[in-house]
Amino acid sequence: MTTDNELFDPILDTRFKGYPRTQPPKRRSEIGQAGWHVLAGDLPLPLAVLKREALEHNLAWMQARVRQWGIDLAPHGKTTMSPQLFRRQLDAGAWGLTFATVTQLAVGVAAGARRTLIANQVVSDEDLAGIQLLLHAHMDLRVVFLVDSLAQLGLIEAWAERHHESLPLEVMLEIGVEGGRTGCRTQEEAVTLATALRQSKAVRLVGIECYEGLAATGESGADTAYANALMDRVEAVARHCDTHGLFEGDEVIVSAGGSAIFDLVAGRLKPALKAGVRGVLRSGCYVTHDHGFYKRMLSAVDQRLGCDCGESLRPAMEVWATVQSRPEPGLAILAVGKRDISFDLSLPVPIARAARGSLVPEGVPADWKITGLNDQHAYLRWDDAASPQAPAVGDRIGLGISHPCTTFDKWHWMPVVEEDYRVSDAVSMHF
Amino acid sequence: MTTDNELFDPILDTRFKGYPRTQPPKRRSEIGQAGWHVLAGDLPLPLAVLKREALEHNLAWMQARVRQWGIDLAPHGKTTMSPQLFRRQLDAGAWGLTFATVTQLAVGVAAGARRTLIANQVVSDEDLAGIQLLLHAHMDLRVVFLVDSLAQLGLIEAWAERHHESLPLEVMLEIGVEGGRTGCRTQEEAVTLATALRQSKAVRLVGIECYEGLAATGESGADTAYANALMDRVEAVARHCDTHGLFEGDEVIVSAGGSAIFDLVAGRLKPALKAGVRGVLRSGCYVTHDHGFYKRMLSAVDQRLGCDCGESLRPAMEVWATVQSRPEPGLAILAVGKRDISFDLSLPVPIARAARGSLVPEGVPADWKITGLNDQHAYLRWDDAASPQAPAVGDRIGLGISHPCTTFDKWHWMPVVEEDYRVSDAVSMHF
Repeated sequence: MTTDNELFDPILDTRFKGYPRTQPPKRRSEIGQAGWHVLAGDLPLPLAVLKREALEHNLAWMQARVRQWGIDLAPHGKTTMSPQLFRRQLDAGAWGLTFATVTQLAVGVAAGARRTLIANQVVSDEDLAGIQLLLHAHMDLRVVFLVDSLAQLGLIEAWAERHHESLPLEVMLEIGVEGGRTGCRTQEEAVTLATALRQSKAVRLVGIECYEGLAATGESGADTAYANALMDRVEAVARHCDTHGLFEGDEVIVSAGGSAIFDLVAGRLKPALKAGVRGVLRSGCYVTHDHGFYKRMLSAVDQRLGCDCGESLRPAMEVWATVQSRPEPGLAILAVGKRDISFDLSLPVPIARAARGSLVPEGVPADWKITGLNDQHAYLRWDDAASPQAPAVGDRIGLGISHPCTTFDKWHWMPVVEEDYRVSDAVSMHF
Repeated sequence: MTTDNELFDPILDTRFKGYPRTQPPKRRSEIGQAGWHVLAGDLPLPLAVLKREALEHNLAWMQARVRQWGIDLAPHGKTTMSPQLFRRQLDAGAWGLTFATVTQLAVGVAAGARRTLIANQVVSDEDLAGIQLLLHAHMDLRVVFLVDSLAQLGLIEAWAERHHESLPLEVMLEIGVEGGRTGCRTQEEAVTLATALRQSKAVRLVGIECYEGLAATGESGADTAYANALMDRVEAVARHCDTHGLFEGDEVIVSAGGSAIFDLVAGRLKPALKAGVRGVLRSGCYVTHDHGFYKRMLSAVDQRLGCDCGESLRPAMEVWATVQSRPEPGLAILAVGKRDISFDLSLPVPIARAARGSLVPEGVPADWKITGLNDQHAYLRWDDAASPQAPAVGDRIGLGISHPCTTFDKWHWMPVVEEDYRVSDAVSMHF
């Protein structure tokens, strides 16, 4: 098994994308001292970089928000799958971490997480056994996963009957939305399931959960109405479970929160119950934020929060690439593609250019846009074919991303850079 | 630096997606003897698997085609980035391997490739230095990359002037298409560049190249006309260069070939020149083929080739996932998402189902379809809400993919399975 030190401080070498080809292997923790500079050509492009100041700002800003709201943060680890970023989130004050799969959970536990949520239904024998292995290995570990059907409960009970040594499994009831993803669609269904969970010896019902993020539009009227209706349903089921003694444990976890309209659910995570309530927000993308989808969503969040929260999230990730060809007027081909950068929510956006040899990036004209990606290429187009600002072969272009999750998963490591693009640290990813 | 043995035979463990959680770490080469069975629950899902027989059929089939056409194969390694699959392609008779980046090239060279193409413009100092490092380390290594502009040549010459010890760089002239990606748009531009390449001390012009795949429609009339027009242009420039002595070396490489309409360029890769010609096809996706985009493209290839080529490519990759929820009629949520499977050319397709506990997959109704993916979830829908064949929570669903390149890059390793889903081998990927 990979040791925790290998996970935290892996040895990187030239076979990892972005590692300098003339450098000997280094531990991740040694990279900040190497004196590399992204725009000096010390690292081959394309290269995804994290900006230290923006990263630290985002970690602090989100932690300040949940403190203000009187709730806790269990950031979704699937966004970054980076042990070093997990550690920073926990150090910043996160109550725990959230994962999507048991494999992700194992990485998070190795990175030090002890209060964990799996924001998914666990159903297979392999996954149930995997959680038990982790619980047995770490007596201080807490794992809470989602249940949304009697069929799922039946599978868990069948597994538990065959494994008498198993520790009780903590679960949250998931409330879903008609036409949405997982989760109980009706109060009746939810209450029936909660009653069955209370009666089951295999599980302990410790909370209630929903995910509001999929329906986000960025239009505050619609998003507020949607979030309120969903949280009204969560609260109604929570009250029923509370009144009827269906929850077990010292406190009830009430959890929601993606990264698009998290402010609209945050205030609803502490409903007045007889039991103590721990409200847990699960936003993950706030760590790096972006220049695309989440930037658009956050402009509505900012308006709703007003100016009392100070400057909100900053984009902390950029992908730099080289112009490899200028084959016709108004078109440059960049050596970066689907293998390197998100394209699922929207295409990357050009945000900076550093001419060949220059250490200082400059802004780019407003008419520059990425119009398409292939596996290893990007199409940068502009309107004014005669523009003296047109990019030249060999120029380096900085791209902003849309959707951090699908850029992080394309890299094994990323340098952390200062504002002047000197490399001061590095993180690794474990997808 | 990662040793070649670590590259070929890495140690896998539970932190790699799909590795059995109750198993000790194993070397890749030990996995075939472990007695695992995908449908017995020995490996956690989701899991991408390669089917051994289909893989071997595809390797042999494509090699037989290029032999029949009298040309050579340098499969594009970016598809799989798997050292073990590279080795199989070379063992099957491939002349060389193609890559998109210098980092990919380094992995390929470590895997044993000695005749290599970079089907891209190399422009940066870092990449030029990286090629030189590899050439100096492997005296039998050949690296040929693309040039499409005087600007690019200028950057190469500037680099060479600063590095007098550098070995000559072999290049091919790229011919492109108006509105396309890279490559010279006109004969005049191509001839001017070829003349400059001939005069340059930094490079040796050893061939000519194009990429026809981006324009493929699957409609034979249009695709044939497009491929012929492009290859006419390649041939015209090749003749000019041949006549005017612009090529250097023993033979002229003429190369093309994606995996969509490769048959339409294969016959044009040996134009009659005074110099000897080596036709090199670069198809990459043939190794695993797919159930989506390339399946559609290959049905037209099959029609054009007729029946004398026997059964053509077979889909060799499947991704298996668990039904985690059946939240409303006609909808199942699978625990597999954008992190695990291609979605860029078209969505995955359900091709098989194994009920919980069953070792034998069965076919699925024709109305099952995947209608969307999130990061970690897939939406499986069907029309007949009352169907007795509806999937149950805990069922395992086999998905066919569309576009091998963007599924390979989501995994560190994949088991190779027999027809009955017993695991008989494994490969690793190095993106």
